[in-house]
Amino acid sequence: MNAVNTSSAEGVRPDQRIFIANRGEIAVRIIEACDRLGFETVLGVSAADRDTLGARRVGRTVVLGGPRPGDSYLNMDAVLQAAVSTGCTAVHPGYGFLSENPEFARKCAGEGIVFIGPSPQALESLGDKLTARALAESVGVPVSAGGTAESAEEVRELAERIGYPVLVKAAYGGGGRGMKLVESAEDLEDAWHLASSEAASSFGNGLVFLERFVTDAKHVEVQILGDRHGNRVHLGERECSVQFRYQKVVEEAPCAALPQPTRELLHASALKIAAALDYVGLGTVEFLYDVTRDELSFLEVNPRLQVEHPVTEAVTGVDLVREQILAALGEPLEITQEHVSLTGHAVECRITAQDPERGLAPSPGRVTRWSSPPVGGARMDSHIYEGYLFPPYYDALMGKQIVWAPDRAAAVERMKHVLERLVIEGVTTSLPLLRRILDHPQFRDNTVTTHWLNHELARLTHAHQNQQEVSA
Amino acid sequence: MNAVNTSSAEGVRPDQRIFIANRGEIAVRIIEACDRLGFETVLGVSAADRDTLGARRVGRTVVLGGPRPGDSYLNMDAVLQAAVSTGCTAVHPGYGFLSENPEFARKCAGEGIVFIGPSPQALESLGDKLTARALAESVGVPVSAGGTAESAEEVRELAERIGYPVLVKAAYGGGGRGMKLVESAEDLEDAWHLASSEAASSFGNGLVFLERFVTDAKHVEVQILGDRHGNRVHLGERECSVQFRYQKVVEEAPCAALPQPTRELLHASALKIAAALDYVGLGTVEFLYDVTRDELSFLEVNPRLQVEHPVTEAVTGVDLVREQILAALGEPLEITQEHVSLTGHAVECRITAQDPERGLAPSPGRVTRWSSPPVGGARMDSHIYEGYLFPPYYDALMGKQIVWAPDRAAAVERMKHVLERLVIEGVTTSLPLLRRILDHPQFRDNTVTTHWLNHELARLTHAHQNQQEVSA
Repeated sequence: MNAVNTSSAEGVRPDQRIFIANRGEIAVRIIEACDRLGFETVLGVSAADRDTLGARRVGRTVVLGGPRPGDSYLNMDAVLQAAVSTGCTAVHPGYGFLSENPEFARKCAGEGIVFIGPSPQALESLGDKLTARALAESVGVPVSAGGTAESAEEVRELAERIGYPVLVKAAYGGGGRGMKLVESAEDLEDAWHLASSEAASSFGNGLVFLERFVTDAKHVEVQILGDRHGNRVHLGERECSVQFRYQKVVEEAPCAALPQPTRELLHASALKIAAALDYVGLGTVEFLYDVTRDELSFLEVNPRLQVEHPVTEAVTGVDLVREQILAALGEPLEITQEHVSLTGHAVECRITAQDPERGLAPSPGRVTRWSSPPVGGARMDSHIYEGYLFPPYYDALMGKQIVWAPDRAAAVERMKHVLERLVIEGVTTSLPLLRRILDHPQFRDNTVTTHWLNHELARLTHAHQNQQEVSA
Repeated sequence: MNAVNTSSAEGVRPDQRIFIANRGEIAVRIIEACDRLGFETVLGVSAADRDTLGARRVGRTVVLGGPRPGDSYLNMDAVLQAAVSTGCTAVHPGYGFLSENPEFARKCAGEGIVFIGPSPQALESLGDKLTARALAESVGVPVSAGGTAESAEEVRELAERIGYPVLVKAAYGGGGRGMKLVESAEDLEDAWHLASSEAASSFGNGLVFLERFVTDAKHVEVQILGDRHGNRVHLGERECSVQFRYQKVVEEAPCAALPQPTRELLHASALKIAAALDYVGLGTVEFLYDVTRDELSFLEVNPRLQVEHPVTEAVTGVDLVREQILAALGEPLEITQEHVSLTGHAVECRITAQDPERGLAPSPGRVTRWSSPPVGGARMDSHIYEGYLFPPYYDALMGKQIVWAPDRAAAVERMKHVLERLVIEGVTTSLPLLRRILDHPQFRDNTVTTHWLNHELARLTHAHQNQQEVSA
């Protein structure tokens, strides 16, 4: 509510006022990090988000525009104008929305406002997956077989060389859009054109490329952090193989299935890519891990804070949002690689307003009860309160339940214990599905790969289980 | 920032606006509980507390008066007027200040405002320790040998009957004031008169009584919770034997040193007392546990939220502040005794602005750095931010570090790990002392009793350790 002046004493940072260009749980997380740093905060909200928990917690709110993201959180001019007019010194873009947009980063710099993220050049290189692949290859990091082609003839030859099945992917895409799986040569040309036109309409650029489709891979990713003074560290890896249509559902740190030499290669590869980019800020280098072949292949770099960052915080003890903000403001990292020690195992479950019985269709509505157990070892990052009208305009994330325990088996047990005590009423959520995933032998054995939930979802629903009982 | 209307939908509670008549970390804790319940909040602040984290997080602040507690947080009329004029439906008094004041509870009722605490009658019975002792005795709960007397002759006889050493205690006292230890008969009369006059000046009532002085006891306490519908549960016990001059320093749940039959007796005794009081809300029944004799004796009931409540939350998963507020609003408890299950072990360390090298003298000042590691299993309840000017007017509590692990040894190790990563600069704190306590063989063995730190403090300071090294 009140201005906090911290500039008068020695050893205290200059005043900062941070504009938060995001919403939901991550807005709350960023406000809390700013509060602890003694920084003032301003939150840009859409007309639908005036009554969020973030709006309650923040120093000041500015309405950016209508509920649709294009009118508010994606509206660069509205965000910039709000940040400038409230005297903000920096903008935190959170994840999604404008967080990976080089044009927005440039516009911030043009207004003399710090963009809390990497340089516009880094954002540009990483936005194009073909460029990012080439960069990884250039520093000796393994990428999966693939490439792009000019003619139908070349595409066919490339696919033969890679070997079916292949994936057609949008160079500027993400989240599964503009992506097609091709099982055999006869479907190739159609898929190529379809993907290209989807990519053109979704991402404004129809450039597509081919990649080997790894059928049995885990998703692993390395958290990196760099400052403006050439210091860079990795903070270990996460595993996010439990995905539904490329949306992560359960995340962990570390990836318990990695042999130690492979883990070391993974970390070294991530640092090589970070070095090649002169990377400043927080980023995630994503890989696929082919369990059968014990082989890593580079996927992409996410140049921003990630939804699943708390599992890394839980095993490293590093406050990633704090470090990200301080690095963007030009402070040197306080930690070196030697200081990073990983202990125990952390699991995160994304609790979403989605109905598992209807293919995880969105299920917005009013939350009448939200009681999150403060069990030891558990952390809930959420913007939900009782009486909150969960809006239909944005992603379905209601909260992230994070638990920590000395090892993976104990952490999974702990998560079960916590989810059994989490009470949500008024809105249909993914909670029953999460509980079933935690009980699944393949999840317990840690043999899940990225396509597992796509195939298993139907069998994990109540409708299916009832059917089983009837036929038994 | 904004009003949240939750009354329109079915199944949602009527609107509530909670006035928080407290400060520091507990104000932040209560604001967060209210936020999750969708309740509006108003914070009463002193002139010195305009820039606190609570003031930033709350819906609205009202200045109650000057920095001195008597002018603000203890000023009943100022608090009531602020709550009434802002349209609040309930007052949360936190701990200390007005939280145990029956007159204040009555005044709230007179204004039609819910006092979040037990009834004025219960507060009255519990405010007088002689009445509370009599109540415990009347329901068959063991109290230590003791009583009061009218003449010098009677006092002498009583002391002989109890056996030296004895304690002279103020009936309406607390926190060690008006309390005298008497080793032999010749000091008795002086101590009796001194304690009585101290009690009269500190608590407005000179009534004192005698109690056997237990030299080798652990402090154990049981968390109880009751509603307006006759339901009552206990939530297990805590141990708080690490105290310095009756101020708790380290707290745990459960008390690992209790044999199971004694633990059951302890819980049953607490529930008997709660039943005798028709207890509504959150309370703590305190006992001494004589380790040598395996004997419990009742001490007192604290009819309020307690500083160390998070260790109970960590082992039970019950959000005590949420339950306390809902019980005060007349909702029936959602949990029954059968639902209360305790898992693992939790430890809390109170981090204070006190200098261990100078007998834990207060050390207020500007906090230039406050970096709390988000290690898994760790929770930090604190109102500190970087740049915050820690004021000299109130208690020295800066934050509570809470950790959880499957057993006591693991929890202690975890706490060490976390405290090693906690960075505080600008203000001298108890952190070095806490680290040394955690390493002490007697703390590790769990043989610490309530007088241990009083004797051990000097040996746990840096000055003493340097001396040792020189003489070695």
